[in-house]
Amino acid sequence: MCRNCDYTIHGAQHHFGWDNSQPPALRVEPGAKIGFHCLDSSAGQLGPSSTVAEIPTLDFGRINPVSGPIHVEGAEPGDALKITIDGFTPREQDGSAWGWTANIPGFGLLADQFTDPALMIWKYDAANPDHALYGRQGRVPLKPFAGTIGCAPAEPGLHSVVPPRRVGGNLDIRDLAAGTVLYLPVEVAGALFSVGDTHAAQGDGEVCGTAIESPMDVALTLDLVKDARLKLPRFTTPGPVTRHLDAKGYEVTTGIGPDLMSASRDAVAGMVDLLCATRGMAAVDAYMLVSTCGDLRISEIVDQPNWVVSFYFPRVVFE
Amino acid sequence: MCRNCDYTIHGAQHHFGWDNSQPPALRVEPGAKIGFHCLDSSAGQLGPSSTVAEIPTLDFGRINPVSGPIHVEGAEPGDALKITIDGFTPREQDGSAWGWTANIPGFGLLADQFTDPALMIWKYDAANPDHALYGRQGRVPLKPFAGTIGCAPAEPGLHSVVPPRRVGGNLDIRDLAAGTVLYLPVEVAGALFSVGDTHAAQGDGEVCGTAIESPMDVALTLDLVKDARLKLPRFTTPGPVTRHLDAKGYEVTTGIGPDLMSASRDAVAGMVDLLCATRGMAAVDAYMLVSTCGDLRISEIVDQPNWVVSFYFPRVVFE
Repeated sequence: MCRNCDYTIHGAQHHFGWDNSQPPALRVEPGAKIGFHCLDSSAGQLGPSSTVAEIPTLDFGRINPVSGPIHVEGAEPGDALKITIDGFTPREQDGSAWGWTANIPGFGLLADQFTDPALMIWKYDAANPDHALYGRQGRVPLKPFAGTIGCAPAEPGLHSVVPPRRVGGNLDIRDLAAGTVLYLPVEVAGALFSVGDTHAAQGDGEVCGTAIESPMDVALTLDLVKDARLKLPRFTTPGPVTRHLDAKGYEVTTGIGPDLMSASRDAVAGMVDLLCATRGMAAVDAYMLVSTCGDLRISEIVDQPNWVVSFYFPRVVFE
Repeated sequence: MCRNCDYTIHGAQHHFGWDNSQPPALRVEPGAKIGFHCLDSSAGQLGPSSTVAEIPTLDFGRINPVSGPIHVEGAEPGDALKITIDGFTPREQDGSAWGWTANIPGFGLLADQFTDPALMIWKYDAANPDHALYGRQGRVPLKPFAGTIGCAPAEPGLHSVVPPRRVGGNLDIRDLAAGTVLYLPVEVAGALFSVGDTHAAQGDGEVCGTAIESPMDVALTLDLVKDARLKLPRFTTPGPVTRHLDAKGYEVTTGIGPDLMSASRDAVAGMVDLLCATRGMAAVDAYMLVSTCGDLRISEIVDQPNWVVSFYFPRVVFE
């Protein structure tokens, strides 16, 4: 993996949930470049030959492992951890890079409408992770990133990995990709940084609850901004963020109303309906597909009392 | 203006609010191409020489005029109106194309934080509406579109133009620009279509409540899709939607929590703070600037109980 990294964190060096009493896997000086072997978000419970029958048997106590934690010398509450995201290398299994997307009952934006488990296994080229085929139905452009990236919270005890927090965590921000510089608030001495939940592709929203969940190696450089007094995560991208999927334009559905959550649900349900009607897809297949490449945007949030949320599906998937 | 249009709707042919008893300005067959002279959203109350002293005196009974309505022969409830957006031509005043952006007390995502009126007047090249300078502080890429575009609702009476509805209206969707094809539900015989509120540029969200409000001529082709049974507006863009502003990447701030509105407010407030700290801008100037070019995106909406909203500011504005 990362040939010019100063340190390597192996896949076995993972933990579940956030706990600031977790002993560090490694202590580094600011400026260290670290390679992390990240498991997929099922922690290996699913593999390239898995079937949908395995979804109901998943052990949710072993969901979303993160590799770490890293103690950064000199980091103190009030500082910001500066994370330069150097790159991603998909890990091969059975001769190919791979990933999974699932509808997990009870989880996802339209969980009430999609109550049965579903699973899609993707395979793609590890050396050139440019795109992955969605069966015979589409071709999704890839852009690897880390779904979960964060520091330990100040509050003692073990905290679920599922919700993101002001110290980061399960942010699922699609643009935390190679080249991006992320700043996270530090709440405990040493920051206690961990990363995992690598995704080969995801749309803004991650609407079905999963992306293309894919084990990868991640190379990061950790640095400090002393006394930054950062309230919430922020990041800088070095260039465009949607050019891998925007060339052919978009099909866009909308939701309109006084509640952004309801409007988001209407916009996504509208896109599922549109893909079923125009592409002959099964609804759950459309739902999982759009989670990997469709983007939720807030078009307007000021024209009281009704807001507009739009869901952008990239036409390049079918062209 | 539109040399190959079949009809012209002049600026005087406008109305305020939506009312399906409003007599049509024009009756056309499906397929008609129409040029609309659209007033700015102040209906001419503001001009290129206006000052901030005029903001408190604005007559809100004359806000957001729309040109029309157009009765499309054969349109019936259950049909969709198909609107091909052919193009925009900014109207010159005092020798230049122009626009305004205001903080109007009581209106906008952060109205509680920005209680004083503010006004920015923009000038730009009508023949080549590529960008506009924000004083000496930045350079905003332009992409003209119609903020308000809709049909008359079925419900009788006069309805405010401010909130968008399932028949469209004040959608303020930044990508309803040249080349986009928009589909709107028809609720009354003839559809009764109107358009206005032209913007030279706006970010997703229109966070301060106004965009670059600019009088323009709009050319549209109106067609029908019979018995489309469309629930909400949808549209198709012919190509990329952010390449006018993404070349240098983005600065991104976030909001994280169980309420999408609060998260949106935190993300925008974070960007205002960042621009004040890094560019030495006055807060209200940053707030108005980001309304014209910053984009609100929902990064994740499934990691219960906390969602992530991100606000993307294009670095090209300062580079």
